[in-house]
Amino acid sequence: MTMPADTGASVTMTLDEVRALARTVLRRQGLNARHAEAVAETMVAGERDGCASHGLYRLLVSAHTIASGNVVPDAEPVATDTAPALVRVDAKGGYAQLAFELGKPLLVEKARRCGIAALALNNCVHFAALWPEVEALCDEGLVALAFTPSHAWVAPAGGTRPVFGTNPIAFGWPRPGREPFVFDLATSAVARGEIELHRRAGRAIPEGWGIDPEGRPTTDAAEALAGAMLTFGGHKGSALAAMVELIAGPLIGDMTSRESLAADNGAKASPLGGELLIAIDPAGFLGAGAEEHIRRAEAMFDEITSQGARLPSQRRYEARRRSVAEGVRIPRVLLDDIERLRK
Amino acid sequence: MTMPADTGASVTMTLDEVRALARTVLRRQGLNARHAEAVAETMVAGERDGCASHGLYRLLVSAHTIASGNVVPDAEPVATDTAPALVRVDAKGGYAQLAFELGKPLLVEKARRCGIAALALNNCVHFAALWPEVEALCDEGLVALAFTPSHAWVAPAGGTRPVFGTNPIAFGWPRPGREPFVFDLATSAVARGEIELHRRAGRAIPEGWGIDPEGRPTTDAAEALAGAMLTFGGHKGSALAAMVELIAGPLIGDMTSRESLAADNGAKASPLGGELLIAIDPAGFLGAGAEEHIRRAEAMFDEITSQGARLPSQRRYEARRRSVAEGVRIPRVLLDDIERLRK
Repeated sequence: MTMPADTGASVTMTLDEVRALARTVLRRQGLNARHAEAVAETMVAGERDGCASHGLYRLLVSAHTIASGNVVPDAEPVATDTAPALVRVDAKGGYAQLAFELGKPLLVEKARRCGIAALALNNCVHFAALWPEVEALCDEGLVALAFTPSHAWVAPAGGTRPVFGTNPIAFGWPRPGREPFVFDLATSAVARGEIELHRRAGRAIPEGWGIDPEGRPTTDAAEALAGAMLTFGGHKGSALAAMVELIAGPLIGDMTSRESLAADNGAKASPLGGELLIAIDPAGFLGAGAEEHIRRAEAMFDEITSQGARLPSQRRYEARRRSVAEGVRIPRVLLDDIERLRK
Repeated sequence: MTMPADTGASVTMTLDEVRALARTVLRRQGLNARHAEAVAETMVAGERDGCASHGLYRLLVSAHTIASGNVVPDAEPVATDTAPALVRVDAKGGYAQLAFELGKPLLVEKARRCGIAALALNNCVHFAALWPEVEALCDEGLVALAFTPSHAWVAPAGGTRPVFGTNPIAFGWPRPGREPFVFDLATSAVARGEIELHRRAGRAIPEGWGIDPEGRPTTDAAEALAGAMLTFGGHKGSALAAMVELIAGPLIGDMTSRESLAADNGAKASPLGGELLIAIDPAGFLGAGAEEHIRRAEAMFDEITSQGARLPSQRRYEARRRSVAEGVRIPRVLLDDIERLRK
């Protein structure tokens, strides 16, 4: 593969070039072809939508996780039909993407038949955002929710020690003729990487992000990383984080964030565990009348944007349109780091 | 009915006395017997659990709503089976409680058969919290979620005008041999009543609760009531509030909070609209293995409480134990206000 032209501090690549690079590197890291293709797509989506932290940067993360032996590089996911509106996919220790690819059509079919359905992904390694998955379900005309625990880094409100992961909640709502309404929010106050960036830069973190190992509020990034992160929104965010633990952990027979961190055993690899997706067919409640009601949702979106507020996914979609037209700019230093991995 | 003995500023009543008083007053306000009984139970639950704002105080609210003609006092809810895992109950303009009573066994049956199921309540008048409903589903061994819009009082993050209601999200998780893990959180920063209390007391509200009619941050309670409330947790709470609008509004063919406020037409009656409940059977994913996994959830609860943090429902359950043993104390002035309504 030819590397794209250097333009100084960053390199402009087409999305096809991003895809090819991601696949090639993931194959060299040891993933089999199907896993490499599935995981590469989430990196393409990340770069395309301006989420660099979920783009090619993740090749550095996967390099470490695969080398640590914490992911099965050729796992064959297996689907089980456990109830009329439920399906489980055992990822067999591989990355979640391939498990989702296997489970998605089964979930879609069940949601259309039953009106609502749920998909549990088990025993998978996570490192992607949840929005590509809810967006894929919106593309099928479904309303979608997704939840996953991670590693126990986050203390409950009023507590002193980590119990929860960053525990994202993602939601998607299909919109006729345009990108869906999608959000994907960590129930932690910020991403862990954000605190790490402050630590590297020697900058203080704002109050409300973390507590030190003794459970005291801190603005020292290193102390917060050694202690615990906090949830967003105080006790409300903490309640939501607990919900994510429960419904994407024990409810689907998978690990809590504490169990995932214990299983990691200091390897600092990507979180291992489960994910729960729920899909609802608007036609299930409303039949042919669904269209009229979906239009009322559009009136609500108009009311939000007409007062200058953004919809949660607006920035990503703006980046997407730019990326498709103009390609994406990848930092030279990142490409150099990735290049080094290939040797 | 004999009124309980006066003990000064408050009166101690048994829960049976609370129930009898609520039923009697609701009947006099015009509800038929079945509605009065169903609505009275939520007031009993409110007083029992130390949530005075959802207790007998609500008799003053129902008096106004019923007198305004905004609730059908003898509505007969009708259930429709719209899909294998969905059920809709049209409340026909009555209070939500009776509609939920009709829909609950149908939802439970579908959740057990399909693994996951959803119940939409339509065309109902709301004034109760959602926790009694998720708790009732937990009593059936199910995991439950509930959502409802209200009146448009809350601005989206970055906006200047009300779009959302206080839009609560409630969640319940059954715990073997004890009260379920339950939360019921408004996606607004605080309850509207809290701002109203500040206004009456002439006290400033904290920053982050509201904006004035021009969309500027304010600490003046009256200005915030005239302008808009804010969501909890900034743009994340705002995203969740939008989700509640969508899935408990257009998805189930019912009103958004803006539509509900418009329909109210200045009557200041209780919000009218829909509610979505989702129930998941732990045995659906895990079969007989569910018990073992439910135990791992208990380990997580222990880890939270052992570090001095509270579970969301802890205070309510403590109040409940006291109330069952000792009765509840009702302010004399509230009983006087209720007494006046009976004349």
